[in-house]
Amino acid sequence: MKTYLDCFPCFMRQALFAARISTNDVRLQREVLNRVAEELTRFPLDATPVEMGEKIHAIVKEITGNKDPYKEEKRKYNEIAMKMLPRLREIVSASSDRLLSAIRIAIAGNIIDFGSLSDFNIEDSLEHALSVDFAIFDYGEFRSLLNTAHEVMYIGDNAGEICFDRVLVEELNRMGKKVYFITREEPVINDITLEDARFCKLHEIAEIMSSGSTAPGTIIKHTKKEFRDLFNRVPVIIAKGQGNYETLSGEKRPIFFLLKVKCPVVARDIGANNMDIVLKYNLK
Amino acid sequence: MKTYLDCFPCFMRQALFAARISTNDVRLQREVLNRVAEELTRFPLDATPVEMGEKIHAIVKEITGNKDPYKEEKRKYNEIAMKMLPRLREIVSASSDRLLSAIRIAIAGNIIDFGSLSDFNIEDSLEHALSVDFAIFDYGEFRSLLNTAHEVMYIGDNAGEICFDRVLVEELNRMGKKVYFITREEPVINDITLEDARFCKLHEIAEIMSSGSTAPGTIIKHTKKEFRDLFNRVPVIIAKGQGNYETLSGEKRPIFFLLKVKCPVVARDIGANNMDIVLKYNLK
Repeated sequence: MKTYLDCFPCFMRQALFAARISTNDVRLQREVLNRVAEELTRFPLDATPVEMGEKIHAIVKEITGNKDPYKEEKRKYNEIAMKMLPRLREIVSASSDRLLSAIRIAIAGNIIDFGSLSDFNIEDSLEHALSVDFAIFDYGEFRSLLNTAHEVMYIGDNAGEICFDRVLVEELNRMGKKVYFITREEPVINDITLEDARFCKLHEIAEIMSSGSTAPGTIIKHTKKEFRDLFNRVPVIIAKGQGNYETLSGEKRPIFFLLKVKCPVVARDIGANNMDIVLKYNLK
Repeated sequence: MKTYLDCFPCFMRQALFAARISTNDVRLQREVLNRVAEELTRFPLDATPVEMGEKIHAIVKEITGNKDPYKEEKRKYNEIAMKMLPRLREIVSASSDRLLSAIRIAIAGNIIDFGSLSDFNIEDSLEHALSVDFAIFDYGEFRSLLNTAHEVMYIGDNAGEICFDRVLVEELNRMGKKVYFITREEPVINDITLEDARFCKLHEIAEIMSSGSTAPGTIIKHTKKEFRDLFNRVPVIIAKGQGNYETLSGEKRPIFFLLKVKCPVVARDIGANNMDIVLKYNLK
């Protein structure tokens, strides 16, 4: 997905939010905004918004010296979500379509996103994702590709959310699939790293790997070869959240985007409304 | 009111909104955002947000060549509001406190603000302003100062809104006050100029004058001497809207700010919540 001019005010908003989480020094916060404003004047619109996000968070880290400002928030949401796990599993067990139910749960977790939102309610998101109609629903294609696939790549998104993803990974395991669960390379916003994957014990049910990308998304040209080889080989890829959609929607691979739409620009690009839930096949 | 870092994303939002109203050329819109981003890096936080607003709209005019992009919108809202005038007068006539009722009506009109909002409903705003409690209500001080005053300066704000102001000016006339009604010097956003004052026939019930300020507010150091002499002489000043609050809240003059709060930064600064209605005395 390309960058729209609507993203520019939002870049400044994200920069201010991240700067304030990273430091109480207003002088440093201002310095962050100034540097981001300078970067904005040079940023090409044919790059994805995530590439600007990567720059923003690198600037915040450099100026404030805070390398992982969301560390506490990430732990908090991982803990909250891990406690919800038994209940989430029960929902899947009690449903008539286990796979679909697990997909809905994974999408519910996508509300835990400090890049797009500063305030959210997990219980409301769960109730919503379990009951609402999908705005885009390529479930037939998903089941069909999954039928013949032995391996699935699952590109995760945020801390907390990863425990909701776990429910879907467990379901894929149950269907006999080997899952490669992918994280970001290092902390950026509340996106997951290998540490979060281990905290939520994903390594016990999937092969975990970081992509090499330090952005809040998956910028293919910045990923490591090991990831790219896998990405180009596996027959089914699940990509969670807006950041992965923004960076991977142009790739000619069998990707299924699983997300809750949380910004009007992504909504327009993907063809849905804000707060809609989406299961979109990239090669349709 | 000083500028807060929260204003920075909003400056970009305002710039984009104004650029899009002024031209369909995305290249020029981008040029506007770039120039505004550059200005942001130099903007002192002890200046008022309106001073950045003035720069933004000057940049939009310079780059797009469109000197009055809100011309049609202004005419439209002037016409809509003029048609409402008989009904607004009836509300005042039927009320037990004519002056307060006219103040509430004037505040209702303050919803017509393309600087803060891109979408609003005049009827809802009228109903709200007529019924809701004031968050700040220095009505006693207002009545008291008005009792001994023969002259009142009324600094207007936006097109459309000016016809709502007219109801309060008529009431001041009825109380025997001479009113000086002040407009901006030239078109900026949907703020009023002398042309709007004449369209709504304010010149028949008040002495109309432009302030000399080309900003969407009243930057005293940029006003003309004729205005400043009057501003420093009259015993009561009514200043409508956020732009006038932002630029005049630091002045040691008997100003009553009449507004609907439409941004969280002004809300915090003035001591109210978003969408509250306010009648605030500056010298209290």
